[in-house]
Amino acid sequence: MFNDFKLTDNRPVYIQLKDYFKKMIMKGHLLEDQKLPSTRELSKLLSVSRNTVLTAYADLEQEGLIYAIKGKGNFVGKVDVSKTPSIKLDWKEKVNTATLLADELDLMKHGVRWEKGMISFNSIAPDEKLFDMENFKRAFLTRMSIEGDIVLNYGYAKGYKPLINYLLHYMEMKGIDISNKDILITNGFTEGLDILLSSLTKKSGRIICENPTHHTALKLFRLHGLEVHGIDMKDDGIDIDQVEKSLSQADFDFAYLIPSYHNPTGIVTSSEKRTKIMKLFSKYQIPIIEDGFNEELRYSGSHLAPLLTFAGSGNNVIYISSFSKILFPGLRVGWILADKELIHWLESMKRARTIHTSTLDQAVLFQYLHDGYFEKYLKKAKAVYKKKYELSLQACNQYIPLKRITGDGGLHLFIELEKEINTRTLLKKCYEKGVVFSPGDVFYTDGRGGNTFRLGFSRLNEEDIIQGIRIIGDTLNEELEK
Amino acid sequence: MFNDFKLTDNRPVYIQLKDYFKKMIMKGHLLEDQKLPSTRELSKLLSVSRNTVLTAYADLEQEGLIYAIKGKGNFVGKVDVSKTPSIKLDWKEKVNTATLLADELDLMKHGVRWEKGMISFNSIAPDEKLFDMENFKRAFLTRMSIEGDIVLNYGYAKGYKPLINYLLHYMEMKGIDISNKDILITNGFTEGLDILLSSLTKKSGRIICENPTHHTALKLFRLHGLEVHGIDMKDDGIDIDQVEKSLSQADFDFAYLIPSYHNPTGIVTSSEKRTKIMKLFSKYQIPIIEDGFNEELRYSGSHLAPLLTFAGSGNNVIYISSFSKILFPGLRVGWILADKELIHWLESMKRARTIHTSTLDQAVLFQYLHDGYFEKYLKKAKAVYKKKYELSLQACNQYIPLKRITGDGGLHLFIELEKEINTRTLLKKCYEKGVVFSPGDVFYTDGRGGNTFRLGFSRLNEEDIIQGIRIIGDTLNEELEK
Repeated sequence: MFNDFKLTDNRPVYIQLKDYFKKMIMKGHLLEDQKLPSTRELSKLLSVSRNTVLTAYADLEQEGLIYAIKGKGNFVGKVDVSKTPSIKLDWKEKVNTATLLADELDLMKHGVRWEKGMISFNSIAPDEKLFDMENFKRAFLTRMSIEGDIVLNYGYAKGYKPLINYLLHYMEMKGIDISNKDILITNGFTEGLDILLSSLTKKSGRIICENPTHHTALKLFRLHGLEVHGIDMKDDGIDIDQVEKSLSQADFDFAYLIPSYHNPTGIVTSSEKRTKIMKLFSKYQIPIIEDGFNEELRYSGSHLAPLLTFAGSGNNVIYISSFSKILFPGLRVGWILADKELIHWLESMKRARTIHTSTLDQAVLFQYLHDGYFEKYLKKAKAVYKKKYELSLQACNQYIPLKRITGDGGLHLFIELEKEINTRTLLKKCYEKGVVFSPGDVFYTDGRGGNTFRLGFSRLNEEDIIQGIRIIGDTLNEELEK
Repeated sequence: MFNDFKLTDNRPVYIQLKDYFKKMIMKGHLLEDQKLPSTRELSKLLSVSRNTVLTAYADLEQEGLIYAIKGKGNFVGKVDVSKTPSIKLDWKEKVNTATLLADELDLMKHGVRWEKGMISFNSIAPDEKLFDMENFKRAFLTRMSIEGDIVLNYGYAKGYKPLINYLLHYMEMKGIDISNKDILITNGFTEGLDILLSSLTKKSGRIICENPTHHTALKLFRLHGLEVHGIDMKDDGIDIDQVEKSLSQADFDFAYLIPSYHNPTGIVTSSEKRTKIMKLFSKYQIPIIEDGFNEELRYSGSHLAPLLTFAGSGNNVIYISSFSKILFPGLRVGWILADKELIHWLESMKRARTIHTSTLDQAVLFQYLHDGYFEKYLKKAKAVYKKKYELSLQACNQYIPLKRITGDGGLHLFIELEKEINTRTLLKKCYEKGVVFSPGDVFYTDGRGGNTFRLGFSRLNEEDIIQGIRIIGDTLNEELEK
């Protein structure tokens, strides 16, 4: 007996020994009141130190699995392992329709899978080769030494105060009037939007947004049962005449807009259009959720302020963003900047749903920002991404027989082909040649976009970018020749 | 001009200089096409290095706020700061009833506030003085050096694979049949429960649970519009006869149970009752959400397996837990252990709502667990908490004229006073004497519990525990004498 004990990994030996006994007891291989070998015997038998056995036995006793009798030794305790009759529920039948819809709209499950060695234009996540690990570690150690006990304990639902203050200042530098504003820190952009939808969905159940739009947002709109009213994109942003027409005809709970590096088209809404948008939505008293997505990734052109800047002291714009797409997506930190009163209401929603966002994530991010590493990193990253952007743009124009290409910066381009082309069919052919991209229809509110696709270039090297785009172009040309 | 520039904090100087110019431009103090001082002039004027000015100017140019003309210098760019007419929405009117309810049920907003210097029995969070900072730092640095790029980039909705595997093993050691199970990592227990409610609330809209029960769970039940059916607690757990009667009379979407260190009563459900519970709910095919809350904090007594262990290969128990209450609440990591099929459905809900839980939090927690620091920490913490527990129990019995006291371990005790005593009135008096606790009514599903309260002792030192309990007792005696 006990000679089947084996060290299986590099965890402490006493823990592995404890686990071994636990298993034996749980499975009924050791019976109640059965005497265990003495620590001396076992240590010899298993060639482990006696201390290891002592610690393991002490832990087992602590957990009530064994008991000791002075002078007599250790014995197996009473462990109820009686199993009740096993029943099988049909979970597909037990979960509700929202859950089935979430599964249906889950691109990670149903989208085209990227495989090793493939050239994938699917991602618009940052290139991990750029990660600034050393300064990140430094920021961690600095913050831990300043207030490690606060970093590791419960925080506030609104967020980690130093980070909130930093972000308020950061946003003020974009010309935003922060005097009547406050910030709620969320688990990335996605939780922020989900909380907003949970709070703002009210009377009409109808929202207005750009068409196409960010597919994660679109998924959430659908999961919240919203009627999504999409408005076409012009080269300088949303079609404002269509917006006016829609607002005059129906009621909307709110608008959702991505003025910079619009996802998926990459279009940057012009300054003139921003003013028009603000005037129009103010007139109809409709709140705007402004998605600040990748606003930092402007490679050229004049300065552009967020819609929230144009709102001045008005309180109808809710700005929501995160640094995830630029900095460290593994840290789930986003924020909502909005009117103080609204943040007051949202705070309770946040607390009810996730208590608060990881203090560790917030604290390290704060230190990293505060110490100026973000500025340095952004400069480096922008230089790399700009090059990839220009390369991608040039290659697309050179190799792909396209009808329209948009994207003024950021980490992706959006391509429209001739009407008769179906990009899902194209994707299938490209997949066979080891190239994948995001078919555009998933971004559309109304099933259109079958002739469009999105190209994310951030995580590819220059060689793969050119080769991938060339393959897409060649495949498309073959199709067109048929 | 420019002599009002001041260094305000310890951020890098060039960033503060950049911010200064940004503000001047945004506020219109510097006008379009206005020439800026040369780098040499400015460096002299502000007594900063010329490099600092060069970097600040370069950044401003990058952001489109200034432009350079070769041989002529730097000029203010075109910045549209036109404000649109300011409008004021009434957010209280714009948010929906769920949001107003979340605010109403928000104990942090409406509960009795703890003030510095007070003896607060409100918290059942861990004592931060016990935090094992050095090993936490070690775990961070180890994990970062192993796979820092993975830690900082996007992860999977289901969770960080090494942590999932660790937890599966950890739960298997509790006698759980993991062969048909899987794990979903969540942002703490709270998100886990919220996702479960979002997915399982279906036909009846009715749930069954212990009465009293965990107030955060109760809040979420109400926010999900569920009809909550509470069952009285006996000293060995839920009143099983009442459960049987309820199940035979109405349909329920699921049960929510806290078998160990039940919150708030601290009662541990006996092994015999666990078997009965399992048989009963299996008979009626009702899923059980088992809250594994603080299961690790058993100070004495024989071993007790989770309900999920009793379920054997059955799939009707959903186990949900976190180490937050023991380890580091600042890290928001919890998990759902359940049937593979159910986890498959929940995964899409998780992805839709928060993409995934912080990889950083998960990775550091994994390393900390893997290296055996958790076991060591738990031993230390248990010794401290056990002492506080025994002290609190003794002091309560000595000083408080109570009717019933429950709590077999964990970090809190629950006290029932004579029917005519209102613990909210008692709290007001105690508050004046610098002592606060949690009035018990917030834990009840049906407005009862006016004569009960919860005492959390984890974060208090021994002296304060005794003094605090004595003050409560004295105050109560004064009231009774009246």
